[in-house]
Amino acid sequence: MSTLQESFLVGLIGDGVDPSLTPPMHEREGDAQGVRYLYRPIDLGRIGRAPSAVGDLLRAGRDLGFTGFNITHPCKQLVLAHLDELSDDARRLGAVNTVVLRDGASVGHNTDFSGFAGALRDGLPGADLSDVVQVGAGGAGSAVAYALLASGARRLLVADLDGARAASLAEAMRSLFPHADVVSGAADADAIRRATGVVQCTPIGMHHHPGTPFDPALLSPAQWVADVVYRPVETALVRAARERGCRVLDGGRMAVGQAVDAFRLFTRREPDAQRMRAHFLAMIEEGR
Amino acid sequence: MSTLQESFLVGLIGDGVDPSLTPPMHEREGDAQGVRYLYRPIDLGRIGRAPSAVGDLLRAGRDLGFTGFNITHPCKQLVLAHLDELSDDARRLGAVNTVVLRDGASVGHNTDFSGFAGALRDGLPGADLSDVVQVGAGGAGSAVAYALLASGARRLLVADLDGARAASLAEAMRSLFPHADVVSGAADADAIRRATGVVQCTPIGMHHHPGTPFDPALLSPAQWVADVVYRPVETALVRAARERGCRVLDGGRMAVGQAVDAFRLFTRREPDAQRMRAHFLAMIEEGR
Repeated sequence: MSTLQESFLVGLIGDGVDPSLTPPMHEREGDAQGVRYLYRPIDLGRIGRAPSAVGDLLRAGRDLGFTGFNITHPCKQLVLAHLDELSDDARRLGAVNTVVLRDGASVGHNTDFSGFAGALRDGLPGADLSDVVQVGAGGAGSAVAYALLASGARRLLVADLDGARAASLAEAMRSLFPHADVVSGAADADAIRRATGVVQCTPIGMHHHPGTPFDPALLSPAQWVADVVYRPVETALVRAARERGCRVLDGGRMAVGQAVDAFRLFTRREPDAQRMRAHFLAMIEEGR
Repeated sequence: MSTLQESFLVGLIGDGVDPSLTPPMHEREGDAQGVRYLYRPIDLGRIGRAPSAVGDLLRAGRDLGFTGFNITHPCKQLVLAHLDELSDDARRLGAVNTVVLRDGASVGHNTDFSGFAGALRDGLPGADLSDVVQVGAGGAGSAVAYALLASGARRLLVADLDGARAASLAEAMRSLFPHADVVSGAADADAIRRATGVVQCTPIGMHHHPGTPFDPALLSPAQWVADVVYRPVETALVRAARERGCRVLDGGRMAVGQAVDAFRLFTRREPDAQRMRAHFLAMIEEGR
């Protein structure tokens, strides 16, 4: 005897997540689909819990009827030890940003990777992935490198101010994609000029970190450029690349892509990616 | 910077609560008011937690962004030890069915009592409370006795098949309402005939406990009769009393009353009690 229609209760666990645009993206898409959807940010700093509490929070969420969680910094690796199952990609990548609770079991997924891969496919169809330069080897960088290689990148140069971090990511990706040519090194003028496309995965370009991570004058019109920064959506790099005639993928694409894929996992309903992007851009426009 | 509009997340903690009508009552009223409202039943049996886990569940709910909880059998007393504050009535009654989480603090209330008091006021205006007989001294009986006395009952006879339970409740009520005449004893023919009104607080009259707890032929038209059983809303006692010309208060009034008062506490918005009752009756009609 069921008295309640199906509804969806989701949380976002991480540091500093209260201003995240992901909760309103999900809620608005649920509204548009006519389903009851409530999405709570669970800011570890605000509630005074350590990142290691992520397992406790997951178990509590299961008891209290949560449909699932998105997981972000600094819990994407910590959460692995607390899951019943992992998708193949999340296990290979070693990072989870989406946990689905269903029939008493917790299953980890990674929609940062799939969201970027989908954004690349939809936003830059036919992009030449034969020689890609990626600047930035942090958390977003890992998902992006995995997505590029899973999407067929033949050569990938990973650059980071922290050379050891770049080397470590390159090594991890080589072991996962042994047929690709993955190296670490400097994103110098030669590397940028030679690339078929460039992905920007550092914080540079955000409102509080203005600038570009390399000289955009090095870019030529045949190249494509992707950015993961989305506040603002139009970074200095995206603008300069567009002005030089390059095809561009702004950071909003990845941000929306991870939400689109997570919505599908939580609800088993097909989200309207265009509608979610329009809402996302409107929120950015409003300065939220 | 807030990206989410205010929304309400509530849970119902207790044994066997999955079929409860309280969650859909709240959700529907939230919908009618145009606010996002999600209400989860948290059935201790289903999730495999003991009643003593109520404190853990409350704390977890606070971390995960719950607005509050309704608490039912067998946790209404157990929860007392885990609250930061109590309303005066909940403290006097020693039972909590509603916990509001706000600004990091948990505050306990009792809307079983206030819901019945409101039902009595609205459903039986001007009812003569000078000599009331109450049959049944269990959990619902405690809240009803408290409500009757708080509403001005001068004499209250508490009857129960378990005489010790009736005596214990009568004694507790005497200490709380020293100016009223509260006694325990049998609801025999004399007591029923002499009463200005009778309240039925046992399970008798439910679908699986058919019958009436006393002979309705003893009733006369000047008396009022209240029942707390609401499945069905029209119990054998309610029907017989109405046929004998008595004013009656069906059990749906208390069930809706506790939800109306809890909705107000959770949301600080004024619920539409008529609308909630209409929805409740429709759900009962559908056999949910």
